[in-house]
Amino acid sequence: MPQRTLEQLETPALLLDPQRMDRNIERMRSRLNALGVSFRPHVKTNKSIDVTRRILPAQGPITVSTLLEADYFAKHGFRDILYAVCIAPNKLAHVAALQEQGVQLSIILDSMETARVLTEAQARGRRFDALIEIDSDGHRSGVKPDAPELVEIAKFLERGGIPVRGVLTHAGSSYECTSVEAIRAMAEQERAAVVHAAARLRAAGMACPVVSVGSTPTAMFAQHLEGVTEVRTGVFVFFDLVMAGLNVCSVDDIALSVLGTVIGHRPDKGWTLLDAGWMAMSRDRGTASQPVDQGYGLVCDLAGRPIQDLILVGANQEHGIVGHRSGKPDNTPHLPVGTQVRILPNHACSTAAQYDHYQVVGPDHEVSATWPRFNGW
Amino acid sequence: MPQRTLEQLETPALLLDPQRMDRNIERMRSRLNALGVSFRPHVKTNKSIDVTRRILPAQGPITVSTLLEADYFAKHGFRDILYAVCIAPNKLAHVAALQEQGVQLSIILDSMETARVLTEAQARGRRFDALIEIDSDGHRSGVKPDAPELVEIAKFLERGGIPVRGVLTHAGSSYECTSVEAIRAMAEQERAAVVHAAARLRAAGMACPVVSVGSTPTAMFAQHLEGVTEVRTGVFVFFDLVMAGLNVCSVDDIALSVLGTVIGHRPDKGWTLLDAGWMAMSRDRGTASQPVDQGYGLVCDLAGRPIQDLILVGANQEHGIVGHRSGKPDNTPHLPVGTQVRILPNHACSTAAQYDHYQVVGPDHEVSATWPRFNGW
Repeated sequence: MPQRTLEQLETPALLLDPQRMDRNIERMRSRLNALGVSFRPHVKTNKSIDVTRRILPAQGPITVSTLLEADYFAKHGFRDILYAVCIAPNKLAHVAALQEQGVQLSIILDSMETARVLTEAQARGRRFDALIEIDSDGHRSGVKPDAPELVEIAKFLERGGIPVRGVLTHAGSSYECTSVEAIRAMAEQERAAVVHAAARLRAAGMACPVVSVGSTPTAMFAQHLEGVTEVRTGVFVFFDLVMAGLNVCSVDDIALSVLGTVIGHRPDKGWTLLDAGWMAMSRDRGTASQPVDQGYGLVCDLAGRPIQDLILVGANQEHGIVGHRSGKPDNTPHLPVGTQVRILPNHACSTAAQYDHYQVVGPDHEVSATWPRFNGW
Repeated sequence: MPQRTLEQLETPALLLDPQRMDRNIERMRSRLNALGVSFRPHVKTNKSIDVTRRILPAQGPITVSTLLEADYFAKHGFRDILYAVCIAPNKLAHVAALQEQGVQLSIILDSMETARVLTEAQARGRRFDALIEIDSDGHRSGVKPDAPELVEIAKFLERGGIPVRGVLTHAGSSYECTSVEAIRAMAEQERAAVVHAAARLRAAGMACPVVSVGSTPTAMFAQHLEGVTEVRTGVFVFFDLVMAGLNVCSVDDIALSVLGTVIGHRPDKGWTLLDAGWMAMSRDRGTASQPVDQGYGLVCDLAGRPIQDLILVGANQEHGIVGHRSGKPDNTPHLPVGTQVRILPNHACSTAAQYDHYQVVGPDHEVSATWPRFNGW
């Protein structure tokens, strides 16, 4: 089949710029080398063996957010997998099935209640190893690093025959920081919390070999990661407008975009209508709370350069409404029906999840490959 | 295989209550019978042959929002398909491929620019038939019903050999109405706009056989639809919290829910953590602008009854954060780890799009069937 170009694609389509992606990967890898920590990339953003093989040429350790991700990457030879969402009892049979395939699947928990569920299952012949989730910023789950339960849970697990591999945390609040200084402080807070938790477990006689942190903003701005053994980042591979709004990357680093086509105009309102709506972009409005609200995405030309200040000011299921950031109708240039644009997404994880494949685009707009991805559980 | 029950499902999972669905279908069908209009259901909400066959026992006319929907339903024998998004030039070859399979695929447009694209393609041997989109409420696309271009576009198409089958509109603003009276007025505005447009085309000598409207709220509250020939509604089949917030349905009518499991707690914040986050619910926050904000969804027990005033107050990719609507930590009941809940979605179209199948659940919590659905383009 002759190679297609962007212009020949039916729209909407999910485009991946492999040069930008490789640059992003290299940047994260050299950051983590400099920080002296190992890398356990989170594959929830990409859900693709082709992308993950670029991050990890060998079949290294990965982090997953669903057991379907674990299934898929296990099928592709990955053996060291951390499932980084507190385990639900109805997933233990699935965990066991993965272990039977030879996967070393670590699970996590943050409560005595779940510790009991695990030790009971262990008593019935299951074999788990677990990490305890630490709450470093109050944004979601985890045990506080100085809470008495931390040591109690760990001791209870070990008494029940479940080795505690370590502690992990995710400073999700870093996504809401308003300055690089704030991210830097959050990185230190994340590090200190989990290192303190590990120290308490060691003081109580446990080895606690793994001390794991992970968020793209904190990894990019941490000044040091003393005491941390591994970092789990995911969105860095593509970056997105939320990350650009945090100054974690520039708009030019964003490797993911949605190809859409102009289907009409409303000159009285300064609107250009596209065939890419929220189904193509996702409903994610992650930049709404940032200083620069990018609507449902930033509109670029086929070369990936932003077109003036055009954003998706609105989105219906299959319609995107392009307008000028100023809201002034006269500021919208006329893009004829049929014009293709590339829209940079607010959030790579949610936009990519609307597609089952990436169109990999080369420097001359050629579609050099189609990489499958998956969704669901 | 022995039949499974809800309790045996791995979570998250998309549940469909077929009794509620059948009741919703019957309600819409009898509404449209009473209004004396024919039914061209929109399949963009369900994207499932099993659901659509319940709506249309025969292979009747349908509306689609993507050509992949047209492909899929054509494969299942549907022959009268309206693609209700203004056509993009890069989709004309796909339209032709569907026509070659014997599908009568109608396309729509709202500009002279697109009319030119179509007549040029027609001159190269394509055969289209088209409807002109009318703007009845200023929310998106369409020609104003009294705009001179309306007749110009129609005449231009017919001169180019493209029969104008009619006019259609979608009063999307009905989703933002704040009272039943406002929806009723919007229904009349929608009807009047498209009937007026049809009258103008007829006065100019065209037959304009089709006069098409479509939105679930306006269809439910229209007082009459004189002059309208068909109605295209989609979300009525499942309903959702946005529709309940508009008083178009009650919470008890919502046929779609997401099954999630408790994985932890933060009693200090009054939070219960679930394994169902925005990936399971979608990022849709459609109730945020309604009088009752349902967060990312309304939390119910396994029988589908709301649990006190619990909603998903927050969502990360695979974590849902349940809290009490009041925001008071003490108001959250303790749901033990492992408890399953059913979460009603803000918007059926976006939540269903996060899944590739429905788990059809019977009155005794048995999973009576698994119905595939599809996504993408």
